[in-house]
Amino acid sequence: MANGSPKLGIIGAGQLAQMSLAPAAALGIDLKILAATPSDSAAQYFPTIVGDFRDFEQLKEFADQCDVITFEHELVPNGHIRRLEELGATVRPSSRALHHAQDKLHMRKSFSEIGLAQPAWKLIRDASEIDNFPTILKAVSGGYDGRGVRYINSIVEAEAVLADWGQALCEEVIDFDRELAIMVARSPHNQVSTWATTETVQQDGICIETIAPAPNLDESTAFQAQQIALAIAEHIKLVGVMAVELFDVGGKLVINEVALRPHNSGHWTIEGSVTSQFEQHIRAVLDLPLGSTALNAEWAVMANLLGGQSSDLYRPYLHLFARDPNLKVHNYAKEVRPGRKIGHVTAIGDDLLALRDRVKHAVDYISGAVEE
Amino acid sequence: MANGSPKLGIIGAGQLAQMSLAPAAALGIDLKILAATPSDSAAQYFPTIVGDFRDFEQLKEFADQCDVITFEHELVPNGHIRRLEELGATVRPSSRALHHAQDKLHMRKSFSEIGLAQPAWKLIRDASEIDNFPTILKAVSGGYDGRGVRYINSIVEAEAVLADWGQALCEEVIDFDRELAIMVARSPHNQVSTWATTETVQQDGICIETIAPAPNLDESTAFQAQQIALAIAEHIKLVGVMAVELFDVGGKLVINEVALRPHNSGHWTIEGSVTSQFEQHIRAVLDLPLGSTALNAEWAVMANLLGGQSSDLYRPYLHLFARDPNLKVHNYAKEVRPGRKIGHVTAIGDDLLALRDRVKHAVDYISGAVEE
Repeated sequence: MANGSPKLGIIGAGQLAQMSLAPAAALGIDLKILAATPSDSAAQYFPTIVGDFRDFEQLKEFADQCDVITFEHELVPNGHIRRLEELGATVRPSSRALHHAQDKLHMRKSFSEIGLAQPAWKLIRDASEIDNFPTILKAVSGGYDGRGVRYINSIVEAEAVLADWGQALCEEVIDFDRELAIMVARSPHNQVSTWATTETVQQDGICIETIAPAPNLDESTAFQAQQIALAIAEHIKLVGVMAVELFDVGGKLVINEVALRPHNSGHWTIEGSVTSQFEQHIRAVLDLPLGSTALNAEWAVMANLLGGQSSDLYRPYLHLFARDPNLKVHNYAKEVRPGRKIGHVTAIGDDLLALRDRVKHAVDYISGAVEE
Repeated sequence: MANGSPKLGIIGAGQLAQMSLAPAAALGIDLKILAATPSDSAAQYFPTIVGDFRDFEQLKEFADQCDVITFEHELVPNGHIRRLEELGATVRPSSRALHHAQDKLHMRKSFSEIGLAQPAWKLIRDASEIDNFPTILKAVSGGYDGRGVRYINSIVEAEAVLADWGQALCEEVIDFDRELAIMVARSPHNQVSTWATTETVQQDGICIETIAPAPNLDESTAFQAQQIALAIAEHIKLVGVMAVELFDVGGKLVINEVALRPHNSGHWTIEGSVTSQFEQHIRAVLDLPLGSTALNAEWAVMANLLGGQSSDLYRPYLHLFARDPNLKVHNYAKEVRPGRKIGHVTAIGDDLLALRDRVKHAVDYISGAVEE
């Protein structure tokens, strides 16, 4: 490609990399993607390089072809990233920033240092260290999408988990009113931007729906969410986009998790915002000026499509598109497994109840839960 | 890909195929693209198959891998397409429909049959057959984007052109007020939809700007444009999207050209409409229900980026994105040659004058015509 673009490498080729293809192509970015397998979502639409990011030599070989490296997941060993940095690679976000999403103990310590509100937490190795039940045990590293998080009712349950994990982050159970998430972007020039705070609806620990902006969010709570996101972005020297997941406890916001990449709670930005989280991530890691995060409509509602009975995601389009010509479907072209995130649908407009009905019908219909 | 999608083949891998990648990926379509060279716009973002569509065996080999074949250009020999159809391939639009865009004489005859308003026209082989000067001579086939069209002032000029072409379509010079274009989609189920009629601004025979909806278009003229597009779509049994380019002569619309594919005059639909022309083309050729063509804003203004002095299209982003966080840039990642369409920019909103200023500044800045 001869148009002046730096070579941008994305490690990971799932749906997040796949949804990054559209803005990368629009901006004419010289893109490279490291896929784990040729059947990854992005690999079906892009000439990816297949390799193992856990193998440092393969990782380095990929990095050597790029001017800037970024990630669509948090699975690359932090030590590998540090070595790339030591060898002069430009990695965004940095190994130091990414550590906050890779190591939950580090995140809790780091955010405590700057006085952000978090659940009470401590690292434990023995079930006897737990003061109250119920409690939450989290794997220090390797957990995502509800994996590595256990709701624990008794010392017996805790012993079983600790026998498996060796140690765990033990966190206070927060009696929240709802869960929120806010996406923020930061560039090396320290330009920052946030999108509207989003309500996320979970079922069995998996996000099933998001509503942006979060309904009935008073201005001071919205401001609080933004301040938390900006404080973290500055503190960790974020480069790229980050999702901050929050518990809303009567208007007081408590930090649940962070993800330093485009995130499920920001998928609505593809249709719902002038600049999508995927475009913004590319702009941020390339140190381009950030785009507007203004809303394209009063409301944007997204529902996740979870694998159900049917492996045919295409045939339902015939009914769905006829029923709802305004519905936007994102099908990740992944193999269907029960409960796996295999796509999402978004609708934007001014009638929130109708939007929620429409996206719920769409995912229920595709997954086979309703007939029409 | 195991999700039920038919295999859709696109012949051609320029910017139109490239801009089709985003909706194809979103819908999880099992896509195949036949590129002429590995440096084609779409080939830089998609694992295309490289082959020569003028060679029937190579064309057939590609078609054999697809359930439905479509095109991003009109250059595939009509005889080749007919042979594929005879062999049982599903080609959309059909060879019969496509013939109207490939053969200007056939188009004029066919549209005259159903009484649509066109410039006075006749096929000539000798300059003495021209009744009035100035006149327009058009190559019967092979012309596009202003190529194959000559404005002729004298018999000497006409003789030179005819010596080269052998024959020409001789058309009345229309003294129009402005040029309009309307995009229409039709599916095999005969579902049809149009987008807002668009004003196209030309310079040296090349479109430089489009404004949608066309300003100051009275309702009866807008209705007339829609009726013409629907009449042609029905008459030729269009499947896919089609652009109809029109001369506006005091509110009377006269057909200039048609293109049976996504078209420059519809690029604004990516940001400006719920369903882009690229997504609608895919829906139509796969016989899926068509999407909403409602506008996302009051106005959508697009300006084409033509090759200028600089081959670096990337560096200008630093200034442009800082100046205008709402601007959407599409860079086709093509080699820069003076006057070549190498990208476009779009802005949507409610202040038409400001939108026109912003897109004009952007393309002038990128091409090097203004400094900031």
